[in-house]
Amino acid sequence: METLIKPASGAMIESLQRTLGADAVLLAAQDQQRYLTDWRGQFQGKALAVLRPSSVDQVAGIMRACHGSGVQVVPQGGNSGLAGGATPSASGEQLVLSLERMNRVRLIDPIDDSMIVEAGCILQQVQEQAAEAGKYFPLSFGAEGSAQVGGFLSTNAGGTAVIRYGNARALTLGLEVVLPDGAIWHGLKRLRKDNTGYDLKQLFIGAEGTLGIITAAALRLYPRARQSCVALVAFGSPRQAQKGLARFKDELGEFLSAYELISQPALSLAQSHLHMAPALLPDAPWVALVQVATANSSLALGELVENVLASCFDDGIAADAVVATNERQAAAFWRIRESITAAERAAGKSVKHDVSVPIGAIPGFLDAVQQAVGEAHPELRIIAFGHMGDGNIHLNILLPADAGAQHLAAALNTLVHDIVTSFEGSISAEHGIGQYRVSELIRLKSPTEIALMQKIKQALDTTGQMNPGKVLPAPRD
Amino acid sequence: METLIKPASGAMIESLQRTLGADAVLLAAQDQQRYLTDWRGQFQGKALAVLRPSSVDQVAGIMRACHGSGVQVVPQGGNSGLAGGATPSASGEQLVLSLERMNRVRLIDPIDDSMIVEAGCILQQVQEQAAEAGKYFPLSFGAEGSAQVGGFLSTNAGGTAVIRYGNARALTLGLEVVLPDGAIWHGLKRLRKDNTGYDLKQLFIGAEGTLGIITAAALRLYPRARQSCVALVAFGSPRQAQKGLARFKDELGEFLSAYELISQPALSLAQSHLHMAPALLPDAPWVALVQVATANSSLALGELVENVLASCFDDGIAADAVVATNERQAAAFWRIRESITAAERAAGKSVKHDVSVPIGAIPGFLDAVQQAVGEAHPELRIIAFGHMGDGNIHLNILLPADAGAQHLAAALNTLVHDIVTSFEGSISAEHGIGQYRVSELIRLKSPTEIALMQKIKQALDTTGQMNPGKVLPAPRD
Repeated sequence: METLIKPASGAMIESLQRTLGADAVLLAAQDQQRYLTDWRGQFQGKALAVLRPSSVDQVAGIMRACHGSGVQVVPQGGNSGLAGGATPSASGEQLVLSLERMNRVRLIDPIDDSMIVEAGCILQQVQEQAAEAGKYFPLSFGAEGSAQVGGFLSTNAGGTAVIRYGNARALTLGLEVVLPDGAIWHGLKRLRKDNTGYDLKQLFIGAEGTLGIITAAALRLYPRARQSCVALVAFGSPRQAQKGLARFKDELGEFLSAYELISQPALSLAQSHLHMAPALLPDAPWVALVQVATANSSLALGELVENVLASCFDDGIAADAVVATNERQAAAFWRIRESITAAERAAGKSVKHDVSVPIGAIPGFLDAVQQAVGEAHPELRIIAFGHMGDGNIHLNILLPADAGAQHLAAALNTLVHDIVTSFEGSISAEHGIGQYRVSELIRLKSPTEIALMQKIKQALDTTGQMNPGKVLPAPRD
Repeated sequence: METLIKPASGAMIESLQRTLGADAVLLAAQDQQRYLTDWRGQFQGKALAVLRPSSVDQVAGIMRACHGSGVQVVPQGGNSGLAGGATPSASGEQLVLSLERMNRVRLIDPIDDSMIVEAGCILQQVQEQAAEAGKYFPLSFGAEGSAQVGGFLSTNAGGTAVIRYGNARALTLGLEVVLPDGAIWHGLKRLRKDNTGYDLKQLFIGAEGTLGIITAAALRLYPRARQSCVALVAFGSPRQAQKGLARFKDELGEFLSAYELISQPALSLAQSHLHMAPALLPDAPWVALVQVATANSSLALGELVENVLASCFDDGIAADAVVATNERQAAAFWRIRESITAAERAAGKSVKHDVSVPIGAIPGFLDAVQQAVGEAHPELRIIAFGHMGDGNIHLNILLPADAGAQHLAAALNTLVHDIVTSFEGSISAEHGIGQYRVSELIRLKSPTEIALMQKIKQALDTTGQMNPGKVLPAPRD
């Protein structure tokens, strides 16, 4: 790998100020601050400058100026990531390149069911523009009010509708990318089928800005739902919840757009955080939030759900259920699910895991963690919830507020990740690696896999200037 | 790029015979013959030997022996490809590596909806094994009785169910791959969500064996349909057929598993090839074969289809329709669609195009081709059909059986591909590049895209030994 280490010159900054305009080059500490830390305040860095280009040509110009200069570039979207992937290092020698000004919707095509959006568009804006065109963009997660296109693609974000529509990767038809040397790859095709050589967009999706800078994307749209039905279903165990999932997939698989598992501790925590009376299924050890939806207006969706629930009751799979009878109630059910994270934060420190296992392995995995943590630390509370239909569990452990918490957190991380690995699972289902999980990635991936990743990195980012230290260790580490 | 050109020694062959067994190393011309040509007989090559390993360790051993020796390797599956991707060159110095003996189903997990199959499993066998476990593997196309897993993944095959389930890529959860140096990448995870670094499987899917050898895959399964409904719908034009598609997507999008457009010339050709009376919609310029299916047994699927058809008639979108009233009739409708290729072959030579455009651009694209071909060659018949729901049209032109046909074919290729390109389409929607379309790929892709592909190739296949001359030009070309 070529490594050209040369301190950034004032001349480069001056030149960028001239070409981008002074307001696109932030140098003052107070202007830079919000770009130097992630939203949870867990990662903190410094920057030579924060750049805010407003066109793909400006991004290309920046990269041409940086290429071979030794100046490293950290691309940044809405800064809502959970693994520090968009936070610069502490060196103060990196440029943060925010895409926030590239926020145009370039095209919506309701016949083709596609749209082209720039990297700085906010997810909620994408959802709303799709809805205005009578269509539906399915990606949805807690931070959708601030997450940007470039960020959710670079982390291959998941969220609550993956069971039906897939991850961000599955929703992407094409990309426009500025490469490390400043060349622009115009890959914004809107095709469902294109087998003309290597599928280059796949390289940049989920690469967390380490291979190039996504500046725009062609995304898939779907028909808008005309009716939906949301239920909370009580189960005695994860295994029963899994049987319920199988029943819903088998009978209403086409409509199933969410199957969120919530443990009673997570449910109670959220309900009390929302000052809700714990009236909803208080005796259920596990609850699933089930949503079905369809664009068809004539089907009796509620009746179909009642049928599946009845068969679950008859066969002793589910103990109880509450079906939302109106939109307000459905929204309240979702609010419980979505406030678990905030409720957890209010309850104190916790060590978080975003893991996945094969769907059939979820009950065994949860048992194994419960047992291992229970033996080592019987006093700790486990808050488990997540996207059961995707095998993705958020397994968080509340920590005591004492001095040893940092050490304990690391030990719990190792413990949980080792169990995940024994179930052939993933230590980062949807949050990515960023800087937070690099050492665990190196510890748990095979050397063959790490070597393959490094070959890709070296082939596309020959000078190692793209977001170094994210996903893979920086060369000097 | 390192290039080590050293003629293969007899010693290497002897060593392979010892380690693989003599019956796994085919040297005689009559034994090799069926591996040296594709099923349509359009490509022909020679081989130093045809190797038939029966385990991933044997594949790894072969690659270790070849690595750095200068001997090139051509991986081969069921040999049903349409672009010569698995046919060796004429040099007689390449090894053909057939995966046909690696044909075990390693695992079927009906709870996780996944299975693990080796590269040599035949697609139909995969479908049948899934069905025996009460599940459904949706990939389906004409050559499913001979196509193998390694081949349909290496070409990212499409077929008739892409509109609902996506291409082969979308059906893949994980891969086991032998790399050019003989290292094995054990990437057979069965996860719906895994964001731990670059998604390496994406590199090998659709790479046509130029980056490594897929030896096994973890595939997604779906609930088995309990009912389906097939109809032929008559339209006055592709634009009307597109409105029909929009209507079906909007009302029955969840169930829509095929929407195949067939022009009247294609329909007539197939019907007369099958010795069928042309009783089915004889006056329709265009016909769509529509299929909806669901795992739900209680829905009145036929009634739902009738409703959509009625709304199409009311609004003047569709002129007529025939709904299959039993399985025999549904199969007959499909037989028409599936025999177009054979009917075409029986009618003489043709020049074939496997192209895609954005779905909304299909009518304009078909008009443009009709006009351009009509002006230049008013005597030629165009046979258009394909997967309208995916924007994928097979546009074939019947050629006169005279001496100038070869030259004419090349001219028509250029003409059609230029029109495709002007519509931001793809010159190979689902068949791949192989050796057949390399020159067109180089002519029509941007230099930036070609350079990116070459960087990937050089990074993973440093000695250029993997299937050279496929997808990208061989270094000496």
